[in-house]
Amino acid sequence: MKRLILAACLGIGLVNTSSAQSQDSLMFRRISDEIMLHGTCYDNLRVLCKSVGHRLSGTKAAEKAVKWGEKAMREAGADRVYLQACDVPYWYRGKESLELNVNGQYKKVDALSLGNSDGTNGRTLEAPVVMVHNYEEFKALPEYAVRGKIVFFNYRFRQDYIFTFRGYGDAVKYRVNSPNVAAEKGVAAVLIRSMSTGEDDFPHTGSMHYKDSTRHIPEMAIGNKTADMLEEACKKGTVTAKMNSECKMMQKMVRSYNVIGEIKGTYSPERIITVGGHLDSWDVGEGAHDDGAGCVQSIEVIRAYKALGIRPKCTIRAVLFMNEENGLKGGQAYADSAIANKEKHVIAIETDAGGFSPRGIELEMSPQQKENVLKYKHLFLPYGVYDFSHGGGGADISPLHEKAKVPMAGLLPDSQRYFDVHHTNNDVFETVNHRELKLGAAVLSQFIWLVSQYELN
Amino acid sequence: MKRLILAACLGIGLVNTSSAQSQDSLMFRRISDEIMLHGTCYDNLRVLCKSVGHRLSGTKAAEKAVKWGEKAMREAGADRVYLQACDVPYWYRGKESLELNVNGQYKKVDALSLGNSDGTNGRTLEAPVVMVHNYEEFKALPEYAVRGKIVFFNYRFRQDYIFTFRGYGDAVKYRVNSPNVAAEKGVAAVLIRSMSTGEDDFPHTGSMHYKDSTRHIPEMAIGNKTADMLEEACKKGTVTAKMNSECKMMQKMVRSYNVIGEIKGTYSPERIITVGGHLDSWDVGEGAHDDGAGCVQSIEVIRAYKALGIRPKCTIRAVLFMNEENGLKGGQAYADSAIANKEKHVIAIETDAGGFSPRGIELEMSPQQKENVLKYKHLFLPYGVYDFSHGGGGADISPLHEKAKVPMAGLLPDSQRYFDVHHTNNDVFETVNHRELKLGAAVLSQFIWLVSQYELN
Repeated sequence: MKRLILAACLGIGLVNTSSAQSQDSLMFRRISDEIMLHGTCYDNLRVLCKSVGHRLSGTKAAEKAVKWGEKAMREAGADRVYLQACDVPYWYRGKESLELNVNGQYKKVDALSLGNSDGTNGRTLEAPVVMVHNYEEFKALPEYAVRGKIVFFNYRFRQDYIFTFRGYGDAVKYRVNSPNVAAEKGVAAVLIRSMSTGEDDFPHTGSMHYKDSTRHIPEMAIGNKTADMLEEACKKGTVTAKMNSECKMMQKMVRSYNVIGEIKGTYSPERIITVGGHLDSWDVGEGAHDDGAGCVQSIEVIRAYKALGIRPKCTIRAVLFMNEENGLKGGQAYADSAIANKEKHVIAIETDAGGFSPRGIELEMSPQQKENVLKYKHLFLPYGVYDFSHGGGGADISPLHEKAKVPMAGLLPDSQRYFDVHHTNNDVFETVNHRELKLGAAVLSQFIWLVSQYELN
Repeated sequence: MKRLILAACLGIGLVNTSSAQSQDSLMFRRISDEIMLHGTCYDNLRVLCKSVGHRLSGTKAAEKAVKWGEKAMREAGADRVYLQACDVPYWYRGKESLELNVNGQYKKVDALSLGNSDGTNGRTLEAPVVMVHNYEEFKALPEYAVRGKIVFFNYRFRQDYIFTFRGYGDAVKYRVNSPNVAAEKGVAAVLIRSMSTGEDDFPHTGSMHYKDSTRHIPEMAIGNKTADMLEEACKKGTVTAKMNSECKMMQKMVRSYNVIGEIKGTYSPERIITVGGHLDSWDVGEGAHDDGAGCVQSIEVIRAYKALGIRPKCTIRAVLFMNEENGLKGGQAYADSAIANKEKHVIAIETDAGGFSPRGIELEMSPQQKENVLKYKHLFLPYGVYDFSHGGGGADISPLHEKAKVPMAGLLPDSQRYFDVHHTNNDVFETVNHRELKLGAAVLSQFIWLVSQYELN
């Protein structure tokens, strides 16, 4: 990062590298103290979770969330708060049920249709269940063995991977793509073991995607305990299932918004640092970790800077993106607008990996820029942040990165608990710890302060 | 650490440093895979928490816990399981209540007598409340202002300290020593704000200690929300309180036990590596993080080694210590026995800081020994362990360290959530995450394997 000679104007008083480092370290401490002692992100998250709740794109709840976001940005003291329009898809869940016949009797089990999928149109689909453990097993089966059946893709989340996002990356194709793979052999519907590290029975929803060329067959997820039970039953004999779901993708797009709050930069106001999470969630739980946490942390950056009287050199823009979960329309609208307006982005930073204790910062930028960031690595260590080895950043900022080549970064919290609650009815406020959430917001604010002071080059 | 030439006998096949490192790394992976995929520590913890529950020294529950521990050690496959006798104090809580009159009307609030304290002997003590924020304020008050009153030591846990054990170390004197400080000025009883990072109202118990020279006055802890309310009320006007508690330290000691399970070493069976947590807990909640987690992790070391067919060079001894919370009699008995039997301890390792994601290993040993450990630091990084900067180890192993100069180490998990639940009714199984607990057990097993292979010198 570049040390700007004008730093002295800002009361930072950089004279040489070592005194600058010590000033940096003091600023890190001031930011951390402010947020750990007076942070409002945890209280904000409570309001979002309890007064809005889950907020799928296109719903009334998402509208309410936009209003909440505007208000929270104003309360945080942003110089400017505005909405950025985007048109989002609206997927409707409706009623759904799954019954399994394992001992000569049908029994209802917990299940969730996968997001974007078409259901059974409210009719009951009854068929034998064929279990496979992976695509290789499925491909080896003759068409007659699966035609008209419900295929159960029983792929387990790899608990041996310590970094759970690796396990998610490994397993998620079974959620996104199984209906396409299965439809080619005339399968009637798909059941999947949830993308879950949980030692429980919460089914996990999440997005799937139909290829244009394939028939749209229904897809439902079951929790790990039900999947274990079904696995045992399938080993022993014939299992049949009854599936009924009304879910469908609505044809009309709905007008929605990104919520944006800014602090205007003092030295280079035209240079922008974007930090954001996504405001929409799946239509289960309260979207607490995914991604209420990221929203309130992004708002906290604004609040803390204002409370501390920090006047950043660059403009800081906190963005609550709409529609990350099933369309990315908010992230696309943001990138399109930035390009159309010839905005100069220094970096875009996302926080969308849960409100857990921070451990690192993902860096997706040139080797030289990474090296410049790593010079400041030691400053983060007292806050438990040591891991700068991962690439990536976040889905919402990826259009800006791809289309405008803006460097990306992402807050990297401890990953152990995330896929227990991700996309479930258990992703609620009570699973978020106040200190972990605040510490993440502090690290985010520290990192942004560094980039604003020294940029990346 | 010393590389033993006989390593080849154990099938490890160390030839030179780099291939040894790669073999070490493979062994780390094998241990981690075994525990993350097949670990039983989480299931063991469920049994301990739900079938035994809390287990204060000297109680029937502690007896039951000893039986549970023996059984769990046998099921883990220990070569030898035995009990080591120790006589422990028995503190009795009995009934207790606290009422505060803040608006002309008494209202019952949640409160816990501090461990080892004497209560009001079942009589109601009614007195005005005098609030002070710290000992300086108390010392500045004239005796007549506090004589016969209930003094409320309203010292806040420092939320600005990122490492919460630092905040605990800073605040804990107000729990341990306030009755001694207060009794000198004729105070009738003491109320304290709990040693708590919680954004909730759980009171936290924990040990206090009367000086021989001072009168034994009662001490109760209130949760943060009640303390906030009382603080506001004390600022506005006179508050009175009614305290009633039956608690007392029983005069007779009770026979109890450490539970020990061993794997006999192959090359140096006389050299011992001790790993342990404590089996007793306070008489609230389920003692899940404190320290059921440490017990089941120590047992898991034995189970994992047996499952993997690891035959360690040194003898591995997993110890479930009795009476850490209010006497340390188990730790003392263990040290006394080790000294009497002239046992050769390579190291003693404790896990008593909660079942959270591991971040480091505390090292309390010579600079040279530390340096030898740090050569292997990189092996731990894929498991999220990077911090070897802290000293310490654990209370139970401190007598062995002090009396026999045995090097100490301690598992250092993420500290953000510990003092939310520590010594409360909320320290229950449900607050422990299965992956975090297992990952801690894996790191412990990896570290022990390293020490067993190469020792510390």
